[in-house]
Amino acid sequence: MPELRKDLVRNEWVVIATDRALRPNDFPINKQGVHNLAINGFCPFCEGNEANTPPEIAVVRKPDTAPNGPGWMVRTIPNKFSAFELEGELQQNRTGINESCNGLGRHEVVVETPEHHLELQDYTMERIELVLSTLKGRYNDLARDERIKYIHIYKNRGLFGGASLAHSHSQVVGLPMVPETRHGIEDYYHKTGHCLICDMIKQELEDGSRIVAETEDFLLICPYASRFSYETWIIPRHHTPHFGAITSDQITALASISKQFITAMLDCLDNPSYNLMINTAPVNVQFASAGYHWYIEVAPRFIVTAGLEIGTGYYVNPVAPEISAVMLREYLQQHE
Amino acid sequence: MPELRKDLVRNEWVVIATDRALRPNDFPINKQGVHNLAINGFCPFCEGNEANTPPEIAVVRKPDTAPNGPGWMVRTIPNKFSAFELEGELQQNRTGINESCNGLGRHEVVVETPEHHLELQDYTMERIELVLSTLKGRYNDLARDERIKYIHIYKNRGLFGGASLAHSHSQVVGLPMVPETRHGIEDYYHKTGHCLICDMIKQELEDGSRIVAETEDFLLICPYASRFSYETWIIPRHHTPHFGAITSDQITALASISKQFITAMLDCLDNPSYNLMINTAPVNVQFASAGYHWYIEVAPRFIVTAGLEIGTGYYVNPVAPEISAVMLREYLQQHE
Repeated sequence: MPELRKDLVRNEWVVIATDRALRPNDFPINKQGVHNLAINGFCPFCEGNEANTPPEIAVVRKPDTAPNGPGWMVRTIPNKFSAFELEGELQQNRTGINESCNGLGRHEVVVETPEHHLELQDYTMERIELVLSTLKGRYNDLARDERIKYIHIYKNRGLFGGASLAHSHSQVVGLPMVPETRHGIEDYYHKTGHCLICDMIKQELEDGSRIVAETEDFLLICPYASRFSYETWIIPRHHTPHFGAITSDQITALASISKQFITAMLDCLDNPSYNLMINTAPVNVQFASAGYHWYIEVAPRFIVTAGLEIGTGYYVNPVAPEISAVMLREYLQQHE
Repeated sequence: MPELRKDLVRNEWVVIATDRALRPNDFPINKQGVHNLAINGFCPFCEGNEANTPPEIAVVRKPDTAPNGPGWMVRTIPNKFSAFELEGELQQNRTGINESCNGLGRHEVVVETPEHHLELQDYTMERIELVLSTLKGRYNDLARDERIKYIHIYKNRGLFGGASLAHSHSQVVGLPMVPETRHGIEDYYHKTGHCLICDMIKQELEDGSRIVAETEDFLLICPYASRFSYETWIIPRHHTPHFGAITSDQITALASISKQFITAMLDCLDNPSYNLMINTAPVNVQFASAGYHWYIEVAPRFIVTAGLEIGTGYYVNPVAPEISAVMLREYLQQHE
């Protein structure tokens, strides 16, 4: 079973895939730690290749098609190289100063389309809505398991986004602990009694210089302390802690603005790699969700995190968000 | 002047280069935020091209050669695209909920060799010692300025290491605040009264499974909670908080084991990108250095940090450190 180990220097958990190949050259990863799947020509996510993935967990299918065969629209499967397993209880272990626990959790892949070359910007509105509904469904399904404390949904696109397979997909990870990385949200809530994201919305609307777009339901901004050039957040205006509470109307609105924004961003920045992440409230932790407000973070990736970032946690952003916002706004208007 | 902005979600600072080109296509960075210097054929770090960099800050030169001309062995210059400036005092500003401060600090580049194609593994022992002495000198020089609170020394090698120029160099950054990323070291010290790194050394020597090499002065291990596959730490056995306190004997010993290790690691892993970082104690902060113990962290980089890492801070390491250590040990023995 995979293992979480405590990095005592950073006070954060690292996922160690201890049950993988004993020798680094062995299947399924080569010695660099890259899945071999990524470097041959065969795509396990294409329609017709369903036998090459674990059985589907959730699926939207055309009528009269059989499970785990062709005929699907959006297909959720377990990640074949999952670092997590939902079995038993969380067990913390200690050997001397070292702390570990079992990799209790889930790691799923949502294959967004049966067609290999289509991406988010190419999808019909109907498909984007199906993908968002699927993500909502997976979120709420995982949240039902009390052992899961945080659900992270993300999408890696392109080489610098860390995508290991080109076929368009998102990933859903259910973690047994709440990551420390967003503890500022809780600190802010405890200090002020306010939702940080709601206060940000207010201030950004007053200021205006970092707004990329406004719709009835969503605000798009380049955040004040953007880690990445052209980083953009898509924030629901209405305070909602959990992504799983998104309504059908919001899904329709989000599908529309996401397609417009991603199309404009790819055009503006010459088709970059990117990560898309849904930040949301912890689940199954009493009183923990109060200060949270879900939002989507889109991070174009041009340069990799290097010795300054991974050493100090200080990201250097060479393009101020006020400039990013001007550029993205212009392109978005062209794509309306 | 560049600006540090507080990321309220992560509670960490982001460096925003607000004084850079107003338009993303303008010099000196293209719209992706990549220095244009990196993509044309000219190398400003080569001997003879000194006029293309800012004047040197420190240098080891052959006798009878003029400053800022050819004839140098190791040359320290300000980073031309520095995100920091050592001018005035630290000023914290607040606009509504947003916090910022001026980018008070230093960003220097140590060009390690006048020859474009030589790298650490190719250097003579004399050169490695010169580079280490230069880094020690820069550390101690920056530490004399009370406005600097932390000095981060690092080296980015290769595409996935985030190197923007191929010519071999290290970087020295003096920060006006202590990064939060290693607060576990202080937590451990306050809880136990011990140095975390000393306790790690003890435990790793007893356990043995993660040891890559042992010399009289240094211990090389793949740490228990390695973030990266084949991550290796080079730890001085003798408790020393500051890298700047390294002795000449230790420099000689470190030069020797570093050259052996980097050569073996590059051979073992098919010439990967890597980051090398020196983790050390804060400076000019009263009582802060007690729990610290400097060490070098070498992180081979095969895959970029993707949506899971940058979203949750949980790194997934597909090769257990116990396996990494076996492989690196074998290769190191071949290169002895």
